[in-house]
Amino acid sequence: MSEQIQQPIAVACFGTPGSYSDEAMAKYFAGQVIAPRYFSHFEDVIQAVANKDVTYGVVPIENSSTGSISEVYDLSHHYDCNVVGEKYVRIDHNLLVAPGTTWDDITDVYSHPQGLAQCRDFLKQHPTWKLHPYFSTSQSAQHVAELHDGHAAAIANTRAANLYGLDVLKERINDNTTNFTRFFVIADHMEDKPTCNKITMVLTVHHEPGALYHVLGHFFYAGMNMTHLESRPIQGHPFEYFFHIDVMGSLHDPAVAQMLKMLGKNCKSFKILGNYPADAEGYK
Amino acid sequence: MSEQIQQPIAVACFGTPGSYSDEAMAKYFAGQVIAPRYFSHFEDVIQAVANKDVTYGVVPIENSSTGSISEVYDLSHHYDCNVVGEKYVRIDHNLLVAPGTTWDDITDVYSHPQGLAQCRDFLKQHPTWKLHPYFSTSQSAQHVAELHDGHAAAIANTRAANLYGLDVLKERINDNTTNFTRFFVIADHMEDKPTCNKITMVLTVHHEPGALYHVLGHFFYAGMNMTHLESRPIQGHPFEYFFHIDVMGSLHDPAVAQMLKMLGKNCKSFKILGNYPADAEGYK
Repeated sequence: MSEQIQQPIAVACFGTPGSYSDEAMAKYFAGQVIAPRYFSHFEDVIQAVANKDVTYGVVPIENSSTGSISEVYDLSHHYDCNVVGEKYVRIDHNLLVAPGTTWDDITDVYSHPQGLAQCRDFLKQHPTWKLHPYFSTSQSAQHVAELHDGHAAAIANTRAANLYGLDVLKERINDNTTNFTRFFVIADHMEDKPTCNKITMVLTVHHEPGALYHVLGHFFYAGMNMTHLESRPIQGHPFEYFFHIDVMGSLHDPAVAQMLKMLGKNCKSFKILGNYPADAEGYK
Repeated sequence: MSEQIQQPIAVACFGTPGSYSDEAMAKYFAGQVIAPRYFSHFEDVIQAVANKDVTYGVVPIENSSTGSISEVYDLSHHYDCNVVGEKYVRIDHNLLVAPGTTWDDITDVYSHPQGLAQCRDFLKQHPTWKLHPYFSTSQSAQHVAELHDGHAAAIANTRAANLYGLDVLKERINDNTTNFTRFFVIADHMEDKPTCNKITMVLTVHHEPGALYHVLGHFFYAGMNMTHLESRPIQGHPFEYFFHIDVMGSLHDPAVAQMLKMLGKNCKSFKILGNYPADAEGYK
């Protein structure tokens, strides 16, 4: 019997260790050995996948309070990459300090400006604390760990606390605790799994009366459940519209395959970005 | 002949003086005297409008690379406010310095983390500069003006340069120069102007087969041009979907009024947020 050494899976991740993207990656690949690489731009992540420097990429695609990130759809299309998975992560900010720092010691708080803004009600209760904007929530945790000054706190997730050896002084200090971010797991080819039940596609149509309606008609008459739809004019192309669409279904279903074929013929451009297993977390 | 003293129009603006929201406000109210007040949260702006502390509010609603800001739709609905105008602003970052500071003097650059990220290619050409994240682009300009140290630069718009007495050392240093942000002008009641040609509405439907399709059928059969459509499940309400829809049209058109009445009857909730003149900039 031959022994096989399992190679770690190379994954490109947006952000830095301890970021919410990092958390999404850890949750998605739970139980598998991964070799992560971190990038500060969406394009770098997707390029690393397209160049086969890594097997997968993890990028945020949609936030429940800010909507979807069009750039990620465009880049995935441009680099001819595929969506092979999704993961929802709840945005939970925590007050992190170096071991030994107490509530009374805190004078300075570091986080991304959005992290500080999202914890406004909590921070209002501590008006003497000086707020310091930082590059990201995860980097603010790293910064506080490296400061060693006994007076600093960071606002970040618990993953960053564990990574940088900080204590969680208070959990869930964000005003809105129902804020989720959705992440795409990207690869340079489709992955055919029996559990694939969600299809993501991007398409463009000429701006003609009813173009939008006719596109949706294909899904309706096929009885498909559309979970996400976005359509807007394309900047710089005054008479064209883009669509980002998610529907529940499998490309192995002959009715679905036939419908998508017909739909594609009626579009200016049409691309199936992926067919993948839906993350149940997204429906809660 | 009685003389009438013109009161300045009280306007609540998201962000700080010199922000892109501030620029949108200045462009929208060009030629009118305004008394602006600045708020760091969307809710504060919309609450100020709802409480009649101000006449108008200005908030970002949609970015060409990040999609729309759902929170603003939800808050406008929640506080029963109306959209009375829109304004598109191009995101142009510039390198700003205090008068007298030269290229060779610069050692430190301040901006919002996103501002720094959006100028990555430019900043790569100056690898010795130390990058400092700051609360916002406009506040980084103010900070550099107050530092008086002769070595600092900020990344912000030209409006911030003028406000804080900084020189523009280099214009348009952002990688992507076709990034627009769309802003809503909010009031506590509808404004009936003959130029109103765009309607924004929010609605929710029960998740039944074809619900989405049937909603769009109303617009199609009325021959209306839909310029923005977004639909997603509502977090915490597993069987409901929200829609954000913009269509070209006037509430004074009897066919439009009749169609919207019928549509409203078929929705779980239905609200016309506003009818306002479209900003031509958005169609370029």
